[in-house]
Amino acid sequence: MSSTATPVNLASYASEVATAAQAASRALATATGEQKNGWLGRSAELLRKKSAEILAANAIDVAAAPGFGLSAAAIDRLKLTPARLASAASALEQIAALPDPVGEVIEGSVRPNGLAVTRVRVPLGVVFFIYESRPNVTVDAAGICVKSGNAVILRGGKEALHSNQALHGVLREALEAVDLPGACVQLVETTDRAAVGHFLKLHDRISVTIPRGGKSLIERVVAEATMPVIKHYDGICHVYVDRSADVEMAREIVVNSKCQRPGVCNAAECLLVHREIAAEFLPLVTRDLRSRGVELRCCERSLPLVAGGRAASELDFHTEFLDLILAIRIVDDVGQAINHIETHSSHHTDAIVTSDLTSAGRFTSGVDSAAVIVNASTRFNDGGEFGLGAEIGISTDKFHARGPCGLRELTSYKYIVQGSGQVRS
Amino acid sequence: MSSTATPVNLASYASEVATAAQAASRALATATGEQKNGWLGRSAELLRKKSAEILAANAIDVAAAPGFGLSAAAIDRLKLTPARLASAASALEQIAALPDPVGEVIEGSVRPNGLAVTRVRVPLGVVFFIYESRPNVTVDAAGICVKSGNAVILRGGKEALHSNQALHGVLREALEAVDLPGACVQLVETTDRAAVGHFLKLHDRISVTIPRGGKSLIERVVAEATMPVIKHYDGICHVYVDRSADVEMAREIVVNSKCQRPGVCNAAECLLVHREIAAEFLPLVTRDLRSRGVELRCCERSLPLVAGGRAASELDFHTEFLDLILAIRIVDDVGQAINHIETHSSHHTDAIVTSDLTSAGRFTSGVDSAAVIVNASTRFNDGGEFGLGAEIGISTDKFHARGPCGLRELTSYKYIVQGSGQVRS
Repeated sequence: MSSTATPVNLASYASEVATAAQAASRALATATGEQKNGWLGRSAELLRKKSAEILAANAIDVAAAPGFGLSAAAIDRLKLTPARLASAASALEQIAALPDPVGEVIEGSVRPNGLAVTRVRVPLGVVFFIYESRPNVTVDAAGICVKSGNAVILRGGKEALHSNQALHGVLREALEAVDLPGACVQLVETTDRAAVGHFLKLHDRISVTIPRGGKSLIERVVAEATMPVIKHYDGICHVYVDRSADVEMAREIVVNSKCQRPGVCNAAECLLVHREIAAEFLPLVTRDLRSRGVELRCCERSLPLVAGGRAASELDFHTEFLDLILAIRIVDDVGQAINHIETHSSHHTDAIVTSDLTSAGRFTSGVDSAAVIVNASTRFNDGGEFGLGAEIGISTDKFHARGPCGLRELTSYKYIVQGSGQVRS
Repeated sequence: MSSTATPVNLASYASEVATAAQAASRALATATGEQKNGWLGRSAELLRKKSAEILAANAIDVAAAPGFGLSAAAIDRLKLTPARLASAASALEQIAALPDPVGEVIEGSVRPNGLAVTRVRVPLGVVFFIYESRPNVTVDAAGICVKSGNAVILRGGKEALHSNQALHGVLREALEAVDLPGACVQLVETTDRAAVGHFLKLHDRISVTIPRGGKSLIERVVAEATMPVIKHYDGICHVYVDRSADVEMAREIVVNSKCQRPGVCNAAECLLVHREIAAEFLPLVTRDLRSRGVELRCCERSLPLVAGGRAASELDFHTEFLDLILAIRIVDDVGQAINHIETHSSHHTDAIVTSDLTSAGRFTSGVDSAAVIVNASTRFNDGGEFGLGAEIGISTDKFHARGPCGLRELTSYKYIVQGSGQVRS
């Protein structure tokens, strides 16, 4: 399908794409690891070989980007460079090096009647992946889906269409080279927003939808999807500094959690401090933070201790700033810290700094977040940091997948039962 | 709330129940195994002690049942006897004996930077369980939910309201005895069907809905639910008898799969037979089946081999009969059998009878069903038979839980990270 033609009938276009994906997913489910790794390697090779072509396609998108109203930062994310392309290629090779999740025996036992029951990992089937303008995500997502045995339907941002078409061309060429169906990796070729709605109806063929983007995108997908959605909502992450915290350690962790990359979901948005350490700790840490340009929004009790701070509103304790802003609150004890977090956190990532074993234990058992961290930065909640090898997002759900989603999170399982004629009485 | 009063405002009633359940679930998430097992034991004790009371309440329901238009079979399912009550009490004791899934360390490792990352099992939170008239399900479901650390909202059939109230009274009394919140187990006291719709909107407080009943109930719940649903759709299960099958074994497996309990989801609905064994096998097995009253609906090729058979329609190969009816089709080879199953099966349970290793391997890898069985009856796809110890249903989903759902399937996990001051660079 050409890049400019909008399919006349979006419903039947979506249906055709999904049907082809489902058929491809059946072939992919029983493909060998060698075949899948062969595709990853071949794709990496072609990305390098055809980089001039890909960069030329990307230049078209970049040139058109101001017309789409993209900010300078967004245009930077859209832009492919030889280094970024090389890193996309290496990422595929890293995925190839990961163990194949498909066929993994999760557990197994022999029942008293002699039946051998094993639970074996299988792919989910077809992934519908919706994302925004970074074109290297096209390569990454396709790599993770195919390695985990899933066919993928990629729906990138309209601003990146030419880049995505060039990248998809390479991925598809590599599929042919290893004798896998081309429909293992499909790109939605229309930029019509209505197309997404048609895909979201096809729960009979699409196993899961993964939207990666702003809250409004995720909300739209959740409202319309008829299949499961792996959601990646906001991160309102906390650092709680306990009475017994090592002050130097706490300063480093708070500054890193807030400032190392403030625009991402696992950056801290709120600092909770035990009242007995507040008078010592807050002046020190807030000096560190202010020197890095952080705006400090303080509760009534903490305000007098924070030079340059201003009074926080209740809303500040429910906000994902994604910016150099930090809400600060003094709490009476670890119990109050846990209660604050259970009420205000988005259950993404919350950390405690403490040297007290009881406080650490209460915190890790009482805080119900995807990642609960003791004496380290919130920024560690990440597939790479946790050793998953690759990630397609960080789930804020508790159902199916929680926290970083790697290869395993894109799988299901089946029971395989080996008997010798057993019947049930 | 009294048994007869319909709450004036169903929306606020549902909201109050869900809020109480969520608060209780927080307490339950950190309850010890001793507390939960104490509740199970105390409940079992009270079920025995108060059996006269419970049976009297049940007698009211049974007397009123014909007025609800219940069939004799349905009234039998509704009826509690001393033996059935004793078995409900034992079931709770068996659940107490199972290992506590909460807190299980699923995996863990130390990252190169010294962070110890563990993945630990936690409860989902609040389960909304909708079921039909068997009152012992009230006890069973509550036991499984609480043991797995989840608060449960029970919505039983209106025909069983008095029985469920009596049983729920016992379960609640036992909660008090072990100092767990009464809202760990709540019963929806109104029989107004509209109440369900209000609960299905509360995805902020209810983690998962499990409907157990007919297809129309599940479809209604799926259409209205705003939270995940563990679905238990139909079982269109197959037995494929390969060329190399042991004929005697195959006869027993087919007869058991079809006849041992034809009204349940893991009973076989379709027999596929390799063409090279059909002339020998079909006359034998269909004689066995006919002697058990099974109606045989045959494809064109098998019809001449089946005395008393009649021609199958295409629809017969897509039907869950839940009755003594079997569709029969001859296939050319295991590949055709797999294709038939992948097209017609509901992906619940499918079996092969074979003595050929290659056929067995192709079947187990090519058939994507919750349970794929070699040389045993389809009837084994069951939580008890698989060693799960207790089950709240059999999921036909691939997302989150597949096949029998026991304690583990009602859990999520969180990452607990132990550091010593690490920050991200």
